[in-house]
Amino acid sequence: MSLDAISLFLEATTLKRIPRMGWAMRGVPHVESVAEHSHATTIVALALTDLLNASGTLAIPLNLEKVLVIATLHDLAEAWLTDLPASAQRLIPDAIKSQAEARAIRDLLGSLPSAERLVGWWHEFEDESTPEGRLVCDADKLEMMVQCLRYEQAGARGLDEFWSAMDRHAWHYPISADLYARLKARRSA
Amino acid sequence: MSLDAISLFLEATTLKRIPRMGWAMRGVPHVESVAEHSHATTIVALALTDLLNASGTLAIPLNLEKVLVIATLHDLAEAWLTDLPASAQRLIPDAIKSQAEARAIRDLLGSLPSAERLVGWWHEFEDESTPEGRLVCDADKLEMMVQCLRYEQAGARGLDEFWSAMDRHAWHYPISADLYARLKARRSA
Amino acid sequence: MSLDAISLFLEATTLKRIPRMGWAMRGVPHVESVAEHSHATTIVALALTDLLNASGTLAIPLNLEKVLVIATLHDLAEAWLTDLPASAQRLIPDAIKSQAEARAIRDLLGSLPSAERLVGWWHEFEDESTPEGRLVCDADKLEMMVQCLRYEQAGARGLDEFWSAMDRHAWHYPISADLYARLKARRSA
Amino acid sequence: MSLDAISLFLEATTLKRIPRMGWAMRGVPHVESVAEHSHATTIVALALTDLLNASGTLAIPLNLEKVLVIATLHDLAEAWLTDLPASAQRLIPDAIKSQAEARAIRDLLGSLPSAERLVGWWHEFEDESTPEGRLVCDADKLEMMVQCLRYEQAGARGLDEFWSAMDRHAWHYPISADLYARLKARRSA
Amino acid sequence: MSLDAISLFLEATTLKRIPRMGWAMRGVPHVESVAEHSHATTIVALALTDLLNASGTLAIPLNLEKVLVIATLHDLAEAWLTDLPASAQRLIPDAIKSQAEARAIRDLLGSLPSAERLVGWWHEFEDESTPEGRLVCDADKLEMMVQCLRYEQAGARGLDEFWSAMDRHAWHYPISADLYARLKARRSA
Amino acid sequence: MSLDAISLFLEATTLKRIPRMGWAMRGVPHVESVAEHSHATTIVALALTDLLNASGTLAIPLNLEKVLVIATLHDLAEAWLTDLPASAQRLIPDAIKSQAEARAIRDLLGSLPSAERLVGWWHEFEDESTPEGRLVCDADKLEMMVQCLRYEQAGARGLDEFWSAMDRHAWHYPISADLYARLKARRSA
Repeated sequence: MSLDAISLFLEATTLKRIPRMGWAMRGVPHVESVAEHSHATTIVALALTDLLNASGTLAIPLNLEKVLVIATLHDLAEAWLTDLPASAQRLIPDAIKSQAEARAIRDLLGSLPSAERLVGWWHEFEDESTPEGRLVCDADKLEMMVQCLRYEQAGARGLDEFWSAMDRHAWHYPISADLYARLKARRSA
Repeated sequence: MSLDAISLFLEATTLKRIPRMGWAMRGVPHVESVAEHSHATTIVALALTDLLNASGTLAIPLNLEKVLVIATLHDLAEAWLTDLPASAQRLIPDAIKSQAEARAIRDLLGSLPSAERLVGWWHEFEDESTPEGRLVCDADKLEMMVQCLRYEQAGARGLDEFWSAMDRHAWHYPISADLYARLKARRSA
Repeated sequence: MSLDAISLFLEATTLKRIPRMGWAMRGVPHVESVAEHSHATTIVALALTDLLNASGTLAIPLNLEKVLVIATLHDLAEAWLTDLPASAQRLIPDAIKSQAEARAIRDLLGSLPSAERLVGWWHEFEDESTPEGRLVCDADKLEMMVQCLRYEQAGARGLDEFWSAMDRHAWHYPISADLYARLKARRSA
Repeated sequence: MSLDAISLFLEATTLKRIPRMGWAMRGVPHVESVAEHSHATTIVALALTDLLNASGTLAIPLNLEKVLVIATLHDLAEAWLTDLPASAQRLIPDAIKSQAEARAIRDLLGSLPSAERLVGWWHEFEDESTPEGRLVCDADKLEMMVQCLRYEQAGARGLDEFWSAMDRHAWHYPISADLYARLKARRSA
Repeated sequence: MSLDAISLFLEATTLKRIPRMGWAMRGVPHVESVAEHSHATTIVALALTDLLNASGTLAIPLNLEKVLVIATLHDLAEAWLTDLPASAQRLIPDAIKSQAEARAIRDLLGSLPSAERLVGWWHEFEDESTPEGRLVCDADKLEMMVQCLRYEQAGARGLDEFWSAMDRHAWHYPISADLYARLKARRSA
Repeated sequence: MSLDAISLFLEATTLKRIPRMGWAMRGVPHVESVAEHSHATTIVALALTDLLNASGTLAIPLNLEKVLVIATLHDLAEAWLTDLPASAQRLIPDAIKSQAEARAIRDLLGSLPSAERLVGWWHEFEDESTPEGRLVCDADKLEMMVQCLRYEQAGARGLDEFWSAMDRHAWHYPISADLYARLKARRSA
């Protein structure tokens, strides 16, 4: 069942109503939606790409078009699957979740002329298989921690496990690790 | 990882923050939680059992204790799994979801002396394998439609598919079908 | 005016929209409903009963069926009366409030064959007159403090008076006092 | 226990968290607070007074100062009592509710030099005993119906009983009846 | 385009849906509306006026009628303009904002017989040009800090800049400075 | 004052708390944020670009990278300015608003190596001066109407003026007009 363009647009608005469940389950009062996270992730990905491409450290510059597409669509499958928190992911095998997401993405984007290419790019994120896919992985985590800091700055507590998980996280790009370190420094300030 | 009693209580309060996603995805503005649905389902199950046991139509009366336990715990696994809407269930195999729920229930209730018996009763609901398990299945669906009617009476639209799905539903007890018919008659009134 | 079953179900869903006012008045941002509290109280009551009955300390085991009915229905009258916080209870005589609740419960349950028995059980809670009624009193308070801890773990402040009130509380069962002490220990941790 | 000025201010902000329960119980998704209702009632009372005093129909003009004080404070007691909907008022005797409100108002305003005068004015509203007290009664009801129309214009349903109750209402001033009629005409438009 | 009375009432209810954006932007979870702030400001203004008039420190007592009108209407223009936070006010010239508010107020109140007088009073607030206008300025700021304290007492963080801004604020009346100092003392307590 | 990257990320999350005020003022209960609208607009812009580039109707294909940047950033200035609804835009001169937005965008993006280029692209949207800027204008409006339809499908009323305004709208691309027509056809269905 692949959707026409209007159906895709209607599903895109569904993401405004899918809460990021990890926050809700820890009692955060005002929980962001998947759409809100996706938008901020795209801004983070844009900035990371711009900084990296200007840094002269990459042999081949990142393809910003691809980065932005991936960031915008990286959680689109959640319009059907909803946001499964860590406690759910422990109970559902990774491969099952990945297959479900892949099917959803394929059906959601099926009406677009470039569907195949876009789905392929999404797999680069899922599989962390290309520089652009990995960049969005970093942006996805970094945005989560930016939001975490915002919640804490506004008084939220009980989110320590996010920081300790990220302290062990293997970032794909040094700049992500560096920005995370600076974010964490603000937390202690 | 089975939990002590206090951890179970803390997880029970998590259900207050798990939205019933089917409503959210259709744009219902004020979405009930799984805890709210569970409470109302328990009241419906209590009433159905009382009416059935008084009706003289059952060879063996329903065990109200068991009914109430099952109704109270029927969605407890969602404290970890969250509420997967129909669009997600189409993408995740039933068996995977059932296994995940069964593991969650077992771990959540593990600290209780009667854990084994309680988990067994939950399976009677999941498998629709006993009169009490089937009664709670009916109560679960009937409560959903009561809430659906409440939403519609307050102005919600776009919920027709719930009614058409239930029109085809095979109720386990005639009284459930009868109450559904009366509910639907109120809808048209 | 006693209600038919469907009207009872509709009123049960009203409890989803009655906020627990004590939290709201102290500025808690995301306030649980009476239905949410009732569901978690039923789980606490189930666990307490199971632990007590397995402990060998009771001459006569608690009747779990009765406990679950009482816990599920203990705040049902609030579908009409709403949740009166302590500041309101200081201004309205106890006897008036009790009479109002008793009338509401009687009318709300009036259509059920066992109405009289169920209302009688509710009175056992209200009057703290039987082991099962007293058990639900303990569960009611214990659940309130579990939720209080959850709010505090998520960053809420200004709830000290709940703890100091409970420090002076006379629990009906030692296990309730013990679990409260362990809950409080988690608070200090 | 009468409060100092700062405590009065803190209690005034509590009214921002007291929902108008009649709407909540009928499923209105976004429910106004008592503070919001009080503010809009004060604007309605200001306008009614201005129109009446300019109309030349009153032998003695209304005292606008008194009208504004009464409108601002008319629901102040709800900071402690909360908003009791019609279903609760049927169960709690009027005299009990009035006494509770009177005690609350007296304690809340007790620190002000003019407390006695202000409490007296509030009684003029409660007892409908003066032109200004009666004017605020009309403003209170008229504002409720303005909000009701706003809810309906935004899609809310199930509020017919508000209109049918008001169709039988005895307004104190012809201009209130007239504005209600015009409001209702907009509803049908 | 000046409005008739019913349109004014409808616009007054719009203020219930305009959030006070400064709180929202700092992550406060449950944000008050402009209507809620306006109501509490009117109570603060009433109390300040009563205390001042009773204090014997003023050569001419404050006109309470005027104070209450100004407090009730001081943010009415936000029904059309919405609440512009400090970050927006840095980008939009003061004169532009004042003109826009003045036009809005004039059109919103245009149907009232005393429109001219009421708009004039509003200008006394905007221009801080009379004792009553200045009194409401103080009440407006004091109420903001009362709400700030309430948020902090409930766990909100990140609001220090409100206090440091107010520490430098030039209050019009000594009693306002005194009450602010006492409010701040409660904060440290 | 131009921001470093982390400050930009923090401001990006502010957009999650800026409500789209036009919906709020018309009583829509669950109002989307600017971040949510921006995300859905980016998806619409991606789809429109893909369809147009595949259609063979453009002499020069649209630059998808530029389209995605513009869509992601088109409302970024609202992190400081908030979302000014039509009623506010009637009172604040267009040129003032545009200048304020331009200053905000410049400061918000100032830390990025490509700031100048990104700000330039944003101006292409603001001035509707390039094919990519115009494409995002269409996507911005189309997304608004998709959300409007979603609100209406869920029961919202009072949004007719959005449709009548759009009926008169001059779309930049025929495909946008076509998709709007199909959207409207779904509305009548």
